[in-house]
Amino acid sequence: MTGLRTVKIGEIDRIHILGRTGKVREPLPLFFNGSGIEIRVTGAELWIDLETDSDNLEPWVAYEINGALMGRQMLLPGNHSLCLFRNLDPNEVKTVRFYRELQAVSEDERCRVLVHALRLDGEFCDAPKYERKLEFIGDSITSGEGSYGYVDDTVWVAMYMSASVNYATMTAKALHADLRMISQGGWGVYCGWDNDIRHNIPSVYEKVCGLATGPANEKLGAQDPYDFKDPVDAIVVNLGTNDNSAFNQPPFPDPDTGICHKQNRDEKGNFVPEDIRKVEDAVYDFLKMLRKHNPSAHILWCYGMLGYEMTMPITKAVNRYREETGDQNVAFINLPNTEKDEYGAHMHPGARSHEKAARVLTDYFRNLWNTDETL
Amino acid sequence: MTGLRTVKIGEIDRIHILGRTGKVREPLPLFFNGSGIEIRVTGAELWIDLETDSDNLEPWVAYEINGALMGRQMLLPGNHSLCLFRNLDPNEVKTVRFYRELQAVSEDERCRVLVHALRLDGEFCDAPKYERKLEFIGDSITSGEGSYGYVDDTVWVAMYMSASVNYATMTAKALHADLRMISQGGWGVYCGWDNDIRHNIPSVYEKVCGLATGPANEKLGAQDPYDFKDPVDAIVVNLGTNDNSAFNQPPFPDPDTGICHKQNRDEKGNFVPEDIRKVEDAVYDFLKMLRKHNPSAHILWCYGMLGYEMTMPITKAVNRYREETGDQNVAFINLPNTEKDEYGAHMHPGARSHEKAARVLTDYFRNLWNTDETL
Amino acid sequence: MTGLRTVKIGEIDRIHILGRTGKVREPLPLFFNGSGIEIRVTGAELWIDLETDSDNLEPWVAYEINGALMGRQMLLPGNHSLCLFRNLDPNEVKTVRFYRELQAVSEDERCRVLVHALRLDGEFCDAPKYERKLEFIGDSITSGEGSYGYVDDTVWVAMYMSASVNYATMTAKALHADLRMISQGGWGVYCGWDNDIRHNIPSVYEKVCGLATGPANEKLGAQDPYDFKDPVDAIVVNLGTNDNSAFNQPPFPDPDTGICHKQNRDEKGNFVPEDIRKVEDAVYDFLKMLRKHNPSAHILWCYGMLGYEMTMPITKAVNRYREETGDQNVAFINLPNTEKDEYGAHMHPGARSHEKAARVLTDYFRNLWNTDETL
Amino acid sequence: MTGLRTVKIGEIDRIHILGRTGKVREPLPLFFNGSGIEIRVTGAELWIDLETDSDNLEPWVAYEINGALMGRQMLLPGNHSLCLFRNLDPNEVKTVRFYRELQAVSEDERCRVLVHALRLDGEFCDAPKYERKLEFIGDSITSGEGSYGYVDDTVWVAMYMSASVNYATMTAKALHADLRMISQGGWGVYCGWDNDIRHNIPSVYEKVCGLATGPANEKLGAQDPYDFKDPVDAIVVNLGTNDNSAFNQPPFPDPDTGICHKQNRDEKGNFVPEDIRKVEDAVYDFLKMLRKHNPSAHILWCYGMLGYEMTMPITKAVNRYREETGDQNVAFINLPNTEKDEYGAHMHPGARSHEKAARVLTDYFRNLWNTDETL
Repeated sequence: MTGLRTVKIGEIDRIHILGRTGKVREPLPLFFNGSGIEIRVTGAELWIDLETDSDNLEPWVAYEINGALMGRQMLLPGNHSLCLFRNLDPNEVKTVRFYRELQAVSEDERCRVLVHALRLDGEFCDAPKYERKLEFIGDSITSGEGSYGYVDDTVWVAMYMSASVNYATMTAKALHADLRMISQGGWGVYCGWDNDIRHNIPSVYEKVCGLATGPANEKLGAQDPYDFKDPVDAIVVNLGTNDNSAFNQPPFPDPDTGICHKQNRDEKGNFVPEDIRKVEDAVYDFLKMLRKHNPSAHILWCYGMLGYEMTMPITKAVNRYREETGDQNVAFINLPNTEKDEYGAHMHPGARSHEKAARVLTDYFRNLWNTDETL
Repeated sequence: MTGLRTVKIGEIDRIHILGRTGKVREPLPLFFNGSGIEIRVTGAELWIDLETDSDNLEPWVAYEINGALMGRQMLLPGNHSLCLFRNLDPNEVKTVRFYRELQAVSEDERCRVLVHALRLDGEFCDAPKYERKLEFIGDSITSGEGSYGYVDDTVWVAMYMSASVNYATMTAKALHADLRMISQGGWGVYCGWDNDIRHNIPSVYEKVCGLATGPANEKLGAQDPYDFKDPVDAIVVNLGTNDNSAFNQPPFPDPDTGICHKQNRDEKGNFVPEDIRKVEDAVYDFLKMLRKHNPSAHILWCYGMLGYEMTMPITKAVNRYREETGDQNVAFINLPNTEKDEYGAHMHPGARSHEKAARVLTDYFRNLWNTDETL
Repeated sequence: MTGLRTVKIGEIDRIHILGRTGKVREPLPLFFNGSGIEIRVTGAELWIDLETDSDNLEPWVAYEINGALMGRQMLLPGNHSLCLFRNLDPNEVKTVRFYRELQAVSEDERCRVLVHALRLDGEFCDAPKYERKLEFIGDSITSGEGSYGYVDDTVWVAMYMSASVNYATMTAKALHADLRMISQGGWGVYCGWDNDIRHNIPSVYEKVCGLATGPANEKLGAQDPYDFKDPVDAIVVNLGTNDNSAFNQPPFPDPDTGICHKQNRDEKGNFVPEDIRKVEDAVYDFLKMLRKHNPSAHILWCYGMLGYEMTMPITKAVNRYREETGDQNVAFINLPNTEKDEYGAHMHPGARSHEKAARVLTDYFRNLWNTDETL
Repeated sequence: MTGLRTVKIGEIDRIHILGRTGKVREPLPLFFNGSGIEIRVTGAELWIDLETDSDNLEPWVAYEINGALMGRQMLLPGNHSLCLFRNLDPNEVKTVRFYRELQAVSEDERCRVLVHALRLDGEFCDAPKYERKLEFIGDSITSGEGSYGYVDDTVWVAMYMSASVNYATMTAKALHADLRMISQGGWGVYCGWDNDIRHNIPSVYEKVCGLATGPANEKLGAQDPYDFKDPVDAIVVNLGTNDNSAFNQPPFPDPDTGICHKQNRDEKGNFVPEDIRKVEDAVYDFLKMLRKHNPSAHILWCYGMLGYEMTMPITKAVNRYREETGDQNVAFINLPNTEKDEYGAHMHPGARSHEKAARVLTDYFRNLWNTDETL
């Protein structure tokens, strides 16, 4: 570590920031899974200075050198200096990506990852540039839940989530696209898996990271309105799986209002029309919200990695939105269901299922954008 | 061939007939790709006696012993005696499937394949029985066009079509299900790829084989109303690909009426509403027709193997049908698009694309039927 | 078939003949699996005129258009006119390969496939040319035994053998190389699987097709000395599997001499030294014979697709040969064993095992020849 | 971390130690890649207390929960407390494996990883037991060099080596076998890749970890004679790749003796007989050494993952050993070469090549041991 100079994160111009950020850049908060930094540097050695906090959901991080995953680890509360590489050829330019593995956390106010500085003995070169930008919005699937862990593991803990084994990351890499992810396990477009209607992604979409609560996160700008000035080329929404689960779960008494919420099936097992209409309306309204903030983005609702039951309600709402608004830049496709031998931990998609979904999405955008590369 | 006895096809009770048939069983016409016979026999040797005719589209056939493809060949007009096996252990029971590879042919009135008799030195055992029955309705994809042939081959000839390398067959085999196929290359649910509105599958669905015309086929019962008394468990409709093509093709002057038909895009490239509504209405009407004749079948519209452009119109129509009729036993899913390295001949799905689609459908029905086998 | 002209096989100059041939070219006998013809032609239609005979082992043939397998069928005794294609674009050049699927047959003197003529409405273009020539020498593995058929099928019949699903063919195709095959199921380098010492490949190697006996084959030149004037770049010998089996089989009484032959294991299960030495000597002698007739060929003994037990004796003999002769252009590699889920019929390698072996050999020759293509 | 009790590593009876160890168990040194500990514990939380040191080659470690890789990280000199899991179900039994990723290091005397203690709030259950034990002896391939890292990375640093993406680990896991690894990048059976004759594995095999030098490692027992009392079922030797490289490299002047060493090719490119004999003799002698210390182990020399050039010399030596000693419990097989698209970093086998090799070895041992599981 001798001979390294420390550069504050806010002073680095030649940097690519992955994921949504607000105004706070010094230190730089990494709010979502996949949020991180990417740089191209010379020098033999590189360190990153971090500050993390958490209670029960400790952040995990991962880092890549030249696109290859090198390390993945847990960070317990405190200040951390992680060496990202050492003893490499000082003259060669290395591309380094450092990112958060754990999703934004709505249950642990203390949870945060702050990048303070980089330390290096080389120089910053121009950061990677991406022709295309993608935004992924989702639930536990997009949070990579179960992408790590043994297939029989069923406890809900931080270590099983990731951005490193994740269809969103795989798709963005295959398309050489920039990536933003906004996701939360258990949440839906209308309500959570357990009928908790507060757990809907649209309610947090317009804030920098509405999922990160508490005074510390507030100070970091998490609850600030998100500034949509930096347009994305496409938005992939992968929601509906938990809205479907709610129909199979007991009622949820809202602790704020005391009202019990429950999505119901009729005696034949079909969705009760007025309940499924709530989901359809939520899809419709969310599309309007997305379009308002992203006037030029192609919006693709994708669904199916954990069952196809919501395909009809979602397509109904997407069709209504297209018809009523005249906005044709919105589409739907199914992603293939996770097959028996493709599960990761606690019945969530494993690596092979994520790869399968990424192939479908990569192909979709190659055709949409008329690009010609092969995976 | 000494010591073989000839049994007329109409006299064999222990036989499973694959594909739609009418009243004519002696000789047995094989109208569609995948139409054929399946038997379980003892004996060392087995022959099949056939009569075929054709002009430019000669039939191809294939046969399997114990589920393994053994032969595939062209049959030019005439009478044929094909040896299906010889010198096998006379005491062992062999399962033999013989079937037509070429789709039903709407352009060659002479084309037909008739099974007259089997010749064998063994006995007929009980024919295979299937717990489930599937009906596939489609276009060139379901006709297996390009499933044989080199990727650069672009001529439209009989030899490139098949039931042997075909997602419908693969799905039925994986599910141990019986299979009927009704398909025609170039046809759609509303119109053909070239805006020919006569080329829609619903117009032929209610006949035994509405696609097979001319006096010879008429005599075989092809134009008779199909008797829907034998119910299927599920109907898979894979239509829409040619309805989409029509929007990119020049007008088609109907030779019968002189009227020019053309599906149009607006200046932005979107489907013109009144034209796409024709497709949507055709989907809606076809669902009604399917339900009328198949009151208990699960109907799955699947789409996407050659592009996703019709996903929104089809889902709109399926949703409207579900809503207006209250019939919830109808669903939609996308099948994954054929990727660059998965094409067969003339830009149609190759073996790998068919396998991919079959995996999705197999998984779909395993979940629907709650069966537990792995592929 | 109107408008086709018949060209006798012996009069076609622009033809590539696959497999070993003797002096007889009119008609052209196809002695081995993989023996056949390859042409490039214009025209809409192409036929081949054949004459075949057989008793219990009827020949099977296959044909490809532009490298894609199109048909595969049995040919019972008689004259046959097979249409290889029709209705293709008359101006396009089609590459057509027609070949024998069934190995050379040592048990059925009548068995033969003779090409008499081609009939076409187009012209012959220059036949395909190959930079490299490969010779494969082997047993049932190289005869493609079990490459067709259901995994539980155990009867030894003609239809389960092939050149179409065969590691030798796959390797030659991947390397764009010409191919000759000389193989016989059950035979070894020293003795057959049943200790029959007459069933050794070296005893037939120097004849055109020493395996094809009887007066008819003799007349076709099968028993003539083979003229080695057309050099190959490499010889792949895949023998040893049956020599290993012999150690597990009962003694074989030679009907010609009355002497009983038996390869023995000692009480620990190891090969008895004097018996395994017979195999080693046979390897050694065969290498000498191969070198004598192929002075410049790279000779690669490959082994392992059905178990590794003979690896040590074979490498011992190859090393002795290299040392005693100074000939370093001889090598050995293992091919990967057929795993449980890779079997074809009657416990022989299935398609996946053939593909695996072909990958290893293709890579081997790419490195040897310093060619750069990927599979 | 409240409520955790610390248990010194030497006091844990219910523990499985992976990799070679000497007498020192308190702290427990992890000498080789793959060296580590495995336990089964209850409790919500588990920590490991470590002490590491290094100069230029810092150790990397990895850990698995229930067989799934969870973390991988660098450890710079100092004391470390790593949390291996937290917040898991306290009543469930978790299997945890913690191991060294970096090979034993012959160039950095300071390098070491010492396990001091575990901290937990649960109980130790019986450690995993393995029916079979495997020992792998090798070079950079067995050190997992390039198993991490981008394909164009060429610098020789610690982070690219692993036991986690490694054919030896994969094979042992598939066989449910215990594993010991002894390997060193650049070393051979006779000499190193650069003709340095000191870099031969036999010279260090009889010590606990002859590769780890310096006073600190000496104190840990690295240079003690290894006690071979704990027999392995099989030894897999994967050496020869660097012995082959030496023939293509300039002479190496031995700094100890001043003598220049160089393995030579003749003008045709073949190995000069007296030089290749040195390799053969080294193979022969090493087999004798292995047998002396492992009287009952099956010894399998495997070779080929980076080219087949040494196949003949190695098999020659193995055959000579078998013949001269009568020891038939020694064999050779080729592992398939790394193909173009299977490379990891700096032209070493990547994950796919390791998987391919593991399949071949797993199949080999399943047949040898007559076990019936599928991969």
